[in-house]
Amino acid sequence: MAVVSREEFYEISPADFFYRNRDIAGFSNPARALYSAVRELVENSLDAGELARRPPDIYVRLSCDGEKGEEGSSVYTLRVEDNGSGVPARHIPQAFGQVFYGSKYRLRQARGTFGLGGTMAILYGQITTNSPVHVISSADGKRIHEYTLMIDIKNNRPIVLKHKVYSNHNGWRGTIIETKLEGEYSRAMPKILEYFRQTAVVAPYANLTFVDPKGRLYRFERATEAMPKPPVETKPHPYGIDVETMKRMIAVTQCRDMVSFLREHFHKIGRTIALRFLLEEAKIPPKRKPKRLSNEEIVKLVKAMKRFTGFRAPSADCLSPLGVELFRAGIVKELKPEFVSVKQRPPSVYSGYPFIVEVAIAYGGEIPRTGDIILYRFANRIPLLYDEASDVAWKVVHQLVNWKYYKVDPSKDPVAVFVHVCSTKIPYRSVGKEFIADVPEIEREILNGVRDVARDLSLYLSRKIAVERERQRLDVFEKYLPKIARFSAELAGRNPPDVKPLLKSVVKYGLEEEEGGLTS
Amino acid sequence: MAVVSREEFYEISPADFFYRNRDIAGFSNPARALYSAVRELVENSLDAGELARRPPDIYVRLSCDGEKGEEGSSVYTLRVEDNGSGVPARHIPQAFGQVFYGSKYRLRQARGTFGLGGTMAILYGQITTNSPVHVISSADGKRIHEYTLMIDIKNNRPIVLKHKVYSNHNGWRGTIIETKLEGEYSRAMPKILEYFRQTAVVAPYANLTFVDPKGRLYRFERATEAMPKPPVETKPHPYGIDVETMKRMIAVTQCRDMVSFLREHFHKIGRTIALRFLLEEAKIPPKRKPKRLSNEEIVKLVKAMKRFTGFRAPSADCLSPLGVELFRAGIVKELKPEFVSVKQRPPSVYSGYPFIVEVAIAYGGEIPRTGDIILYRFANRIPLLYDEASDVAWKVVHQLVNWKYYKVDPSKDPVAVFVHVCSTKIPYRSVGKEFIADVPEIEREILNGVRDVARDLSLYLSRKIAVERERQRLDVFEKYLPKIARFSAELAGRNPPDVKPLLKSVVKYGLEEEEGGLTS
Repeated sequence: MAVVSREEFYEISPADFFYRNRDIAGFSNPARALYSAVRELVENSLDAGELARRPPDIYVRLSCDGEKGEEGSSVYTLRVEDNGSGVPARHIPQAFGQVFYGSKYRLRQARGTFGLGGTMAILYGQITTNSPVHVISSADGKRIHEYTLMIDIKNNRPIVLKHKVYSNHNGWRGTIIETKLEGEYSRAMPKILEYFRQTAVVAPYANLTFVDPKGRLYRFERATEAMPKPPVETKPHPYGIDVETMKRMIAVTQCRDMVSFLREHFHKIGRTIALRFLLEEAKIPPKRKPKRLSNEEIVKLVKAMKRFTGFRAPSADCLSPLGVELFRAGIVKELKPEFVSVKQRPPSVYSGYPFIVEVAIAYGGEIPRTGDIILYRFANRIPLLYDEASDVAWKVVHQLVNWKYYKVDPSKDPVAVFVHVCSTKIPYRSVGKEFIADVPEIEREILNGVRDVARDLSLYLSRKIAVERERQRLDVFEKYLPKIARFSAELAGRNPPDVKPLLKSVVKYGLEEEEGGLTS
Repeated sequence: MAVVSREEFYEISPADFFYRNRDIAGFSNPARALYSAVRELVENSLDAGELARRPPDIYVRLSCDGEKGEEGSSVYTLRVEDNGSGVPARHIPQAFGQVFYGSKYRLRQARGTFGLGGTMAILYGQITTNSPVHVISSADGKRIHEYTLMIDIKNNRPIVLKHKVYSNHNGWRGTIIETKLEGEYSRAMPKILEYFRQTAVVAPYANLTFVDPKGRLYRFERATEAMPKPPVETKPHPYGIDVETMKRMIAVTQCRDMVSFLREHFHKIGRTIALRFLLEEAKIPPKRKPKRLSNEEIVKLVKAMKRFTGFRAPSADCLSPLGVELFRAGIVKELKPEFVSVKQRPPSVYSGYPFIVEVAIAYGGEIPRTGDIILYRFANRIPLLYDEASDVAWKVVHQLVNWKYYKVDPSKDPVAVFVHVCSTKIPYRSVGKEFIADVPEIEREILNGVRDVARDLSLYLSRKIAVERERQRLDVFEKYLPKIARFSAELAGRNPPDVKPLLKSVVKYGLEEEEGGLTS
């Protein structure tokens, strides 16, 4: 006897989804939630600074109201101020009070990608403290808008409780967010401080100030005023187009033939390549109107794009990697290693998204011996601190690379590996942006990069060993040669000869170059 | 000179979000996508079987059309058939063609939780092959509905291409899904087979049949017809209520006073407790109308609920754990260990969700020596195979437990630990349901459980060592006592005495009981 189901089916809003499943957005417990909230708001501020092309000044204050929450946790007020681009007033309510609403759904390298993090921090604050968020912003430098907001979770819509407009006498631009949330600072502190420290390494043009709940001030001063070349928005590469994207492009295009459609909407397609592709691979007449393509033709077109080998590789012009010098400087400043090698891999592409991998290896100095290689991970200039073992870089460093081959003993040697991936789209595997998927193309680039720098380290270590042996050999000569010379001279009744030229003649390696590691 | 930003802000639909970010739902590459699609559809089928209270018969066929995709991948057809509850016809289009639409947004133990997995498999199939999905289902046993669907990703709505209705002569109930998708079976195979194997262990009442693309048949026959007690829906526990949930409850309640409101809508609150709570802790009059509560009073009420210690612990009646016997049987069948200990922890609660942790440890037998403890993870009777190191159970087993204390050397001993968490809500930290958050309450229960079973193993190992020493000691006696006896007898000119009683008298431990480990 089967029972007929009387299941109720219904729809929930995205805000409701993340309200029910806050764990997947990095808000699993009060400590983690505090870390995630700080991080999401700081990253928005860094992005806003880059957009405004001003070196960011970011001020973060976390204060405890003394109100106790569930075991060990308390209610905190988190205030984040920046001098970035500001948010246009008409977008403020939705940008901060609606999930999946934002300005970052585009092909441009940015820290934010999901249009979720800032809103999630506010949503978490609301459900744990039932307090509204205050957003103060000026995007035009003329007026300052102050909003007091809550989120209608069930309908995924902002509720504006107050909206004030002030005149902006000083032309201030930027954004201030103040929200209350339940947290546990004592457990979150190490991760939050490590987050600021590593962020200072990869964003050396930013001033970061953090005042913690005990009133302690942590200040990371900018090392340079020079902002890196800003990332620019790019067009999609034909290799990564699927039918869905193609249909969306055709729906909005103004182009009236296939050649101009390809040239207008795709990355690095010129007239010659467009014609060759259409005639040789896709077999679609160049004069064809894009909006007239049938469903079958669109599928055919997309498949041909994946097969065609004549497209130019994606350009990395739109990306803003750290650069070898900046990366090296950050590592040297932080860890003072005796050897460091940094490589930038050539730009590559996965699913049509260009990406660049930068890899560094450092040895000795202040790198602690932890019994394993230490891995630092960065993505679009943000440090990734959680869930290391699920990251593609972990897989490369701990499973794919045979360190013995490079004369490295991970259990004994003080070695740190740094991996920075930048892309118009980082394939995060979690909404909390903790780790990167093992997309084959990215994995390959990281692997090649790590092998490159490991080879340099291997050479350095070989040399170090050879130099060590040589030093021991010379020590023997230096110890006995003068004595032998003296005894022989005494025996012969002569003055002892000068042994220095003799000693020099047995030197195999130039010991004086030994410290050159840092420049390799 | 600051540049005024001209950022475009816009809203995207949930389907669009997951289309753009398929990596976070477990669809990072063709191999992983194939695994995730199989898994999501099989789990829906297992849930449907439990709902129908029929031992599930699930048939999965994966066939390759020979069409090549991107490097190494091909287009596959995935067909999953079950004899479960079926989906009511009017819900089919949305249940399979809309993200965040489903029947599982409730307090009941189920494999599915997000209302996302099945739709995500179909969405991934659509964007990689541009083919529609076929859904055939009968929920009432009278009519069979066949839908051919695609997803309008931009608007998160199903598009019905065809809808046929057949009469159902045999009274068949169940669901059949057939979808095309790009995948890479050769790389996905080990995980898919492991998934079926482990699922057979935790769902021994299901018949699972899998036909792979090479035509190989894998069949996991049910070991029992007896279905476990089905999980039932439960009311929320007051401890886990936040203001948002409270407001939603007040909005829908029919109750006209606080006492009946508490009794009606909350888990295990009776009249006495309701009165004590209202008068002593919340200071809200029992006769007060719920719908008249002010915002401040609701906040006060929720805070009082978190403080009040008089509520009864959540009952686990609504949960359906594996049970010690079933768990042990599965482990013994799979690994034939020489020792196994299984414990079910008492029910506990996190954020108002009841949960039960079951933990087992096994030693020796067919457990391979891998150089570390092998961890098997299950949640609501599904095996979790990816991202082990990010799971709370991994943290417990590899970081919190001091194995030396239990006389276990993880690098040498063949030890496997099994952790099963069941709850009305598993706090997954990823949309792909790969790992569980380190919620403090769950972490504590797993830790206590692992310590419990580790203690048993420790006793067994101590005994094993003692028995081994004893055997060596007896070996010495056995070897020399007869000889001494013979020599002494010969010396004395007598017949050698019977040494057996003497040997027996030096036995300290009953060696014959040594194999009793399995029953401990």
